[in-house]
Amino acid sequence: MPPTGSVADSEFLDERVPVELGPRSYIVRVGNRRLDAFGSFVRQALDRSWAGRTSRTALVVTDSNLTALGLHSAYEAALSAAGIEPVTVLVPPGEGSKSLAGAAKLYDALVAFKADRHTAIVALGGGVIGDLAGFVAATYARGLPLVMVPTTLLAQVDSSVGGKVGINHPAAKNIIGAFHQPVGVWIDTGALDSLPLREVRCGLAEVVKYGVIMDAPFFADLERDARAILARDPRALLHIVGRSCRLKAQVVAQDEREESGLRAILNFGHTVGHAIETVAGYAGEFQHGEAVAAGMVAESRLAERLGWISPDAIERLVRLLDRFGLPTSAPGLDREHLLEAMSRDKKNRQGKIRFVLPRAIGRVETTDAASEEDVRAMLAELVSLSAPETPLSRGQIE
Amino acid sequence: MPPTGSVADSEFLDERVPVELGPRSYIVRVGNRRLDAFGSFVRQALDRSWAGRTSRTALVVTDSNLTALGLHSAYEAALSAAGIEPVTVLVPPGEGSKSLAGAAKLYDALVAFKADRHTAIVALGGGVIGDLAGFVAATYARGLPLVMVPTTLLAQVDSSVGGKVGINHPAAKNIIGAFHQPVGVWIDTGALDSLPLREVRCGLAEVVKYGVIMDAPFFADLERDARAILARDPRALLHIVGRSCRLKAQVVAQDEREESGLRAILNFGHTVGHAIETVAGYAGEFQHGEAVAAGMVAESRLAERLGWISPDAIERLVRLLDRFGLPTSAPGLDREHLLEAMSRDKKNRQGKIRFVLPRAIGRVETTDAASEEDVRAMLAELVSLSAPETPLSRGQIE
Repeated sequence: MPPTGSVADSEFLDERVPVELGPRSYIVRVGNRRLDAFGSFVRQALDRSWAGRTSRTALVVTDSNLTALGLHSAYEAALSAAGIEPVTVLVPPGEGSKSLAGAAKLYDALVAFKADRHTAIVALGGGVIGDLAGFVAATYARGLPLVMVPTTLLAQVDSSVGGKVGINHPAAKNIIGAFHQPVGVWIDTGALDSLPLREVRCGLAEVVKYGVIMDAPFFADLERDARAILARDPRALLHIVGRSCRLKAQVVAQDEREESGLRAILNFGHTVGHAIETVAGYAGEFQHGEAVAAGMVAESRLAERLGWISPDAIERLVRLLDRFGLPTSAPGLDREHLLEAMSRDKKNRQGKIRFVLPRAIGRVETTDAASEEDVRAMLAELVSLSAPETPLSRGQIE
Repeated sequence: MPPTGSVADSEFLDERVPVELGPRSYIVRVGNRRLDAFGSFVRQALDRSWAGRTSRTALVVTDSNLTALGLHSAYEAALSAAGIEPVTVLVPPGEGSKSLAGAAKLYDALVAFKADRHTAIVALGGGVIGDLAGFVAATYARGLPLVMVPTTLLAQVDSSVGGKVGINHPAAKNIIGAFHQPVGVWIDTGALDSLPLREVRCGLAEVVKYGVIMDAPFFADLERDARAILARDPRALLHIVGRSCRLKAQVVAQDEREESGLRAILNFGHTVGHAIETVAGYAGEFQHGEAVAAGMVAESRLAERLGWISPDAIERLVRLLDRFGLPTSAPGLDREHLLEAMSRDKKNRQGKIRFVLPRAIGRVETTDAASEEDVRAMLAELVSLSAPETPLSRGQIE
């Protein structure tokens, strides 16, 4: 576990988090408006990680939300200055692009661009962009070098680090995918200034998750600093992004391909969360972080049912999610549909639903000990219209 | 180099060729009608290679050509007997299935089948089936265990071993793909008895290639045994399939992901060959092996132009391909279109076309030393309507 940090102590404005994966190792650089160094960062990441191949071209994948902010022009200029010719391709914003059709559009662009095995892919955007562009990087010419430039909190603290890339099947989220580590991850927390509040909240769900699964002192930091974080205090943001990336890097370094079971702890809240997203519809009322927030509460209650965790711990979790404006239940969703969606979860073995459940704030374990009765009771509580822990309405400003 | 074998000396009817890739090692079993052992072979391959995961279900991917022969029923029965529940999905025969649409159909089948990370994929068929089913195995749930059961000579000696899987883009063959090693390869040379002659010839092009790139004694075996091979003498077939797999395994073990450059030697004949296929159309008059045959001759002539190889060696190659009924030129194809297609080859760096060219029968090297003028002259000879080495017409029986 890393030492406890506090916002007041965190004076860094440019932190380097190594992800140790032997020949596939790379650096996550977390800073605040350091775009002038982006070109040389990419150049070095490519030279170090893609031995013998010199990239002189890059396909920048982004969406029109980001081009409206003019963000891609600055990144293109930085690439050009580093001797890498960029071509930008836009995908429509939203989860709908994370599909075979979305991938086909990028394959077309690469063919039209006469990409070769040395062409880099730069994923500039949120989780959809990173997952989609990453999948295309994993599967074009059997693997292109990938640079992640996550611009949402969710992507910065979660999907940009660790090599999981993929797209959705209409009936199962993220089921089509691969492991493909980036050669570098460039995180500018300044990009969060213009992020809609709801997007910030969604990212915070994953930040809270790291506290629950492996870092109780960090969970306490979040309780203490909730207000500063929501106010987007620069140091508060650097602290939560840097610490989250460090924690994720630690897990990924020990279990790159989710084989030992350790990496599965990152799925806390996601078994129920993915089911909520599927049932509510990917583009529906629950965004990923919101579904995970409600999922974490539901799975914690399942842990309580198994006698693993105290009601006090759940109370702390619910209170923190409430302060962050995240939902802690999913009233009105169909229980049978949720159960059906959970039965397709990738973690399952031989049809038995596997959960990652907390033993305490800071520690989780994987189990398939929950009975169908327990699971049904958990879902009943999750979808109840009169749950006592009704969240703040999501539009409300704290 | 393995010792020189001869058909008369080869009494084996069941040979095991190991592919040494550390934790991804596997066995290629080459035999003649040993289907009774298939179930236990798959069981062992899965247990050894997919630690901690027990497959109890398998998706058998095949095409209607094979179901017409009743082949899949025997394999299904063998899987059932080994405690693995099979479900068979048919894809339409032909290169058209090696597409995103073809992959989408298999993803749908896996979702409908409620496949999990332990479901095995059994690719029963030729190269199209292996490449397509392998790509889906590489990208479903971030990787399913794959068993290759190649039923054409081309797939037995080439595409089933080594982990290259992929599908076509309308404008570039095999450009969408991954490295995904199978957990085992089961080769029944008895399946070749019912293979159309043209398909046998196509496989022989790749067999000849192994002789040229790395095994001069094997090339001499082929010259000596050409008649027995075309007559599908069982021992002759076992010899060429076993030796080809051993040679390919040797290359793949040293350069799994085509990083050191060694594996690139397998591309001899393919730079021009792929261009011929693209220009003639994937489903056109040139099948893959035929395009590779003409490509090997063209690339050997390019080597002659560079002073690397003697006219005698080319004469031996042309004569052997002729005896196998393979084309040694591509009269009438458009030179500019061929050049354009070659400029998109995955091996290229910074727009320069790279070739694998022979120094002698038994040895090749990678080079980008060929000038555009040399390449154009080679293409002029390839497409000439009055080439002196006009092949036997492909329908002709030797």
